[in-house]
Amino acid sequence: MNKKMILFTLGKLLKVEAVFLLLPLLVALTSGEEEVAAYGIAFAITFLVGTLLSLKAPENRNIYAKEGFFIVGISWCLLSFFGALPLVFSGEIPSFVDAFFETVSGFTTTGSSILTDLDVISRASLFWRSFTHWVGGMGVLVFTVAFIPLASGRSMHILKAEMPGPVVGKLVSKVRVSARILYVIYAVLTAIEIVLLLLGGMPLFDSVLNSFATAGTGGFSMTNEGIGLYNSAYIDGVITFFMILFGINFNLVYFFLIGKILPVLKSEELRGYLVIITLATVGITLNISPMYHSYLEAFRYAVFQVASIITTTGFATANYDLWPMFSQTILLLLMFVGACSGSTGGGIKVSRILMLFKNAVKEVKKLLHSRSVMTVNFEGSAVSPKTLNNIHSFLVLYFLVFAVALLILSLENLDFQTTFSAVATCINNVGPGFKAVGPTENFAFLSNYSKLTLSFVMLAGRLEIFPIFILFSKSFWKG
Amino acid sequence: MNKKMILFTLGKLLKVEAVFLLLPLLVALTSGEEEVAAYGIAFAITFLVGTLLSLKAPENRNIYAKEGFFIVGISWCLLSFFGALPLVFSGEIPSFVDAFFETVSGFTTTGSSILTDLDVISRASLFWRSFTHWVGGMGVLVFTVAFIPLASGRSMHILKAEMPGPVVGKLVSKVRVSARILYVIYAVLTAIEIVLLLLGGMPLFDSVLNSFATAGTGGFSMTNEGIGLYNSAYIDGVITFFMILFGINFNLVYFFLIGKILPVLKSEELRGYLVIITLATVGITLNISPMYHSYLEAFRYAVFQVASIITTTGFATANYDLWPMFSQTILLLLMFVGACSGSTGGGIKVSRILMLFKNAVKEVKKLLHSRSVMTVNFEGSAVSPKTLNNIHSFLVLYFLVFAVALLILSLENLDFQTTFSAVATCINNVGPGFKAVGPTENFAFLSNYSKLTLSFVMLAGRLEIFPIFILFSKSFWKG
Repeated sequence: MNKKMILFTLGKLLKVEAVFLLLPLLVALTSGEEEVAAYGIAFAITFLVGTLLSLKAPENRNIYAKEGFFIVGISWCLLSFFGALPLVFSGEIPSFVDAFFETVSGFTTTGSSILTDLDVISRASLFWRSFTHWVGGMGVLVFTVAFIPLASGRSMHILKAEMPGPVVGKLVSKVRVSARILYVIYAVLTAIEIVLLLLGGMPLFDSVLNSFATAGTGGFSMTNEGIGLYNSAYIDGVITFFMILFGINFNLVYFFLIGKILPVLKSEELRGYLVIITLATVGITLNISPMYHSYLEAFRYAVFQVASIITTTGFATANYDLWPMFSQTILLLLMFVGACSGSTGGGIKVSRILMLFKNAVKEVKKLLHSRSVMTVNFEGSAVSPKTLNNIHSFLVLYFLVFAVALLILSLENLDFQTTFSAVATCINNVGPGFKAVGPTENFAFLSNYSKLTLSFVMLAGRLEIFPIFILFSKSFWKG
Repeated sequence: MNKKMILFTLGKLLKVEAVFLLLPLLVALTSGEEEVAAYGIAFAITFLVGTLLSLKAPENRNIYAKEGFFIVGISWCLLSFFGALPLVFSGEIPSFVDAFFETVSGFTTTGSSILTDLDVISRASLFWRSFTHWVGGMGVLVFTVAFIPLASGRSMHILKAEMPGPVVGKLVSKVRVSARILYVIYAVLTAIEIVLLLLGGMPLFDSVLNSFATAGTGGFSMTNEGIGLYNSAYIDGVITFFMILFGINFNLVYFFLIGKILPVLKSEELRGYLVIITLATVGITLNISPMYHSYLEAFRYAVFQVASIITTTGFATANYDLWPMFSQTILLLLMFVGACSGSTGGGIKVSRILMLFKNAVKEVKKLLHSRSVMTVNFEGSAVSPKTLNNIHSFLVLYFLVFAVALLILSLENLDFQTTFSAVATCINNVGPGFKAVGPTENFAFLSNYSKLTLSFVMLAGRLEIFPIFILFSKSFWKG
């Protein structure tokens, strides 16, 4: 393993995070908040450690798969560790475990919170929380690859490990350029959402933070009332639209923007994603309509909650915990489905589910015609058995993490729906669950070991299991 | 498709069921019960239909995979249909849907019941319910293959589709002889359990019925109090031992009986099964010990419940619904694990889980060393990619059935744990769930559509998904 290059990369990364910490510092300065000190110290520490690690540029700058997974696995832990510091220093989240949970939840774009009262949180920290969503959504390493001179053409291994989805395609032949294009599209779309929210009468600060949370499919709220505070169908509509948009594969968005419409129209994943959203919205609208004044009102809340949960954003404009069990079950299943691969969303991903389902149907056919050769086609080309085995293994490890986390959480002795949905919402990076961790509740009351377990589960979900398992594998450390 | 041979086989099968119906008829006669009429009429109808279908022996007696799956899928529906008749005729279960649910639950060795008071049920019907467990456990078709002249050497396809587990091994080269050996071992072990229960002071009738329910890993109770009625540590112990025994692959039991100890000692599945039982028992014992007088008492109830749930029997000697959530979660996870392949138990099966886990670990290694070739070894030989893909597809379809059933059940608007565990207990052929379908409750209060959904789920679970999916596949009906 190229240890020097790993340390060098981690150092660069911490320096990038240090620069990010200047943003909330700036917010604190302009708002005249005393959190200037906390963010200043956090900046200094992070920058110092980053500089020490990246002092000497290694001669051998090659990064292979092994280093890629390691860097991704470790860096997300480090980023969350250093990102939690200002929250502790400012005294806003005195417990380090709590601050770590909150920061992991931010970077992984989960949006589960341990804060019980957002009114007492400084604007600087509100900004920092939402900003971790934004940069965590597209990937901190992707950002680093895009804008910092780093590795020599091998950085694809880092992207592969950090980007969501079973198959990572490059937009253009150069990884760095692809990463830059992604971030530019991401920033422009976020800016458009900010403008549209401003037009709806939302204050600038709120517009920026809520757009960060939407773009990263994060879902941290910046007020105790959440998006419901604005009580505007227009704002609900804009956010619904952008949640769905940010749940789409960015490659498709890029194709669309450069005028290549055909791949967009032909995308099986996009079609599947939109069909699921439509069916879920119709189902819930009909199911909850007796609770609202009209079908239109029921639709407004149904489509917002559906978009929020399937994209794993986690905003809530309705307390869906009071909805009938049928609607709750739809939402719970949507948590597992998740958004499209190559988006900022979490979950298993629509493409994986479609490929798994197609392969299973093929298997049923093969039992009948044992001699015929059949391949699974997806998005116009054959899916290799290697890819299928990778996706199947992902699923198995995903359920393993789920089962173990469920057992640990069950030691809290809470009701089953709380226990189950807490793990489901964290592994899929959604945010709220049901009952005691429902949309009007939070994760503050859990014990430290549960918070650490869920932090681990959020990281495993965001990095799609493998990088985390590799860190724990014997063969990794032996090699 | 060889339609004539399918009808012929189904006819033979119904005649076998008709003969089975003579057993409860005999019980009714000796007990002087009026249910003689109901069982007499049911026998006559079943025998008549069976005779009509099997009037003309077809010249072409070949059965291929396609016919095998079809026969298994359809026959289990037919057996449950005709098996439900006497319960309706006797007026003991007036609703046909209820009687169908009860019979499916019997044959699939689930043990979920819609009966609210077993004291008013005739001995004939109690016998019939428990007997469906016994014959359903090892397989009605396996029985037919073993003892009725039927197909010409192709009956392996039927066994494959009916026997639980990913890989079906023959004990000896001839399928018929293998099937006979299995049934003889099965009958002898059942007889031994009957004797041991008699020695514990259990009445003969109870001993027979409870042994049927243990051997088939069914779990229908014959009294309102269940096994708890006898309140004997000895009886609990005997039943615990036999539940665990009947959850073991019968091939291993056969090897053990003919003195081949090595394959038994070497079996990875058996080891995994016993390790899981041990860990679960220790975990629950420690967790529930404050609720009992001593660790020993806690252990007695823990091991019984663990054995009952992992083998998917479903007997209960404790209301585990009152246990802490940690113990409940362990039991819930055990439902999914299930017993060993080639046993009478349900669930995903230990062997499948071990193979899936080994393959996933291999995949993690492969990400690090992409060029090396690695195979998954299980029980001393390499698992083919074909087998792995089949198991993965099983898992995907299993979760698909689970998700759809969960959605339908959620329309009952019950609490989440009831909804989730009702589906889990039925797809894994366990019996009781939690809360409203917990060990002291029953399934009577559900609506007809839920009962039919769960009947379908029980069949899908017992036949391990594929035969049911094949019945619904386009390519099956086109061919």
